[in-house]
Amino acid sequence: QCDLTGWWENDLGSKMHVSEVDSQGNFSGEYHTAVSSTQKPIKPSPLIGTQHLDEDGRCTFGFTVNWKKFSDSTSVFVGQCFAGDDREDILQTAWLLREKVDSLHDDWKATR
Amino acid sequence: QCDLTGWWENDLGSKMHVSEVDSQGNFSGEYHTAVSSTQKPIKPSPLIGTQHLDEDGRCTFGFTVNWKKFSDSTSVFVGQCFAGDDREDILQTAWLLREKVDSLHDDWKATR
Amino acid sequence: QCDLTGWWENDLGSKMHVSEVDSQGNFSGEYHTAVSSTQKPIKPSPLIGTQHLDEDGRCTFGFTVNWKKFSDSTSVFVGQCFAGDDREDILQTAWLLREKVDSLHDDWKATR
Amino acid sequence: QCDLTGWWENDLGSKMHVSEVDSQGNFSGEYHTAVSSTQKPIKPSPLIGTQHLDEDGRCTFGFTVNWKKFSDSTSVFVGQCFAGDDREDILQTAWLLREKVDSLHDDWKATR
Repeated sequence: QCDLTGWWENDLGSKMHVSEVDSQGNFSGEYHTAVSSTQKPIKPSPLIGTQHLDEDGRCTFGFTVNWKKFSDSTSVFVGQCFAGDDREDILQTAWLLREKVDSLHDDWKATR
Repeated sequence: QCDLTGWWENDLGSKMHVSEVDSQGNFSGEYHTAVSSTQKPIKPSPLIGTQHLDEDGRCTFGFTVNWKKFSDSTSVFVGQCFAGDDREDILQTAWLLREKVDSLHDDWKATR
Repeated sequence: QCDLTGWWENDLGSKMHVSEVDSQGNFSGEYHTAVSSTQKPIKPSPLIGTQHLDEDGRCTFGFTVNWKKFSDSTSVFVGQCFAGDDREDILQTAWLLREKVDSLHDDWKATR
Repeated sequence: QCDLTGWWENDLGSKMHVSEVDSQGNFSGEYHTAVSSTQKPIKPSPLIGTQHLDEDGRCTFGFTVNWKKFSDSTSVFVGQCFAGDDREDILQTAWLLREKVDSLHDDWKATR
């Protein structure tokens, strides 16, 4: 069964904590990033998202991290939870990072 | 001032409604997509996300759409709100769509 | 029929010129970008790529732009040519821009 | 020194062979993919691309794979070569896969 609740860590050393998932699949939590594109000190950042509660035990999910505490940017992650056999579950995700730009003319380079 | 509350429409004809943004920048709403990668009938889908409340009136934001009502997939959007002068505000966004796959071996093609 | 040969211009004002496409579908040309993520003066940059020569008149294509003349970065574009009725053909593309980073630890932020 | 010439293999088991890189940084080769989004038998596919020849020994590169032998699609890869100390060099890449769609209306889902 897919259950995002708890602590997760990625290859870069970033960690996130997902609080309880409600009956709609919505959840909140905190993201502790290990990397940053800014110079300011990193702070734990709030995340909010939602997951499927599918019958086959697999699920896709997505969440948004609001970096407002140290950066004018926002990230989104989307992925799927894969059940490990004897081992821990694995989250496979892709992400986009949006940095604030001054005008529409710079919009082309705002997302990585 | 950046205010996501209300109705938005994109070039494809998809529409979304954002309910009130709370003091943390979190919001929920409903996404009415005009396009789909599945054959099932499209239904309005819940979204949940968060935005910055920056001092300069600009903001970045992100949200997750849970397509559980007709699809085993999840989308995330990230973007920035640009104030229109006399005209309406413009949201510039990028997105990822995650479809559920059967195994880690198929993970490479799960996101578009 | 899909024919990339000639001049193309995008919404940002960047222009590219594709020289003759050979029998394998390979082509070269020059990209005149209107935007840049560096401070150095922009220069026309060589591109090299390949397209399909499908029977139905539609084609997908891809090409690489080598920004070596003013930037330590490389871009790739991938897309499809859509025939305009009475009007000009339209190229729909997506792109990635890779900037050089110092180490594997910074690899996560190298691509936008 | 960055030298793409030779054989490379990725985590999915796909292999590619890059022929000699010319003085402009251009190269061609063959991509043997281990995965496919189509049902047709996979065949080795031609690639064409270009790399930087920077002074600091690092380089970014990009190339296009033309899947015309078994698929109406095209892929682009962009990345950087990282020198291994005693070990083999590592290529870090990101990619886009463009599948042919019937009309502009389906363009939104053509790239993954």
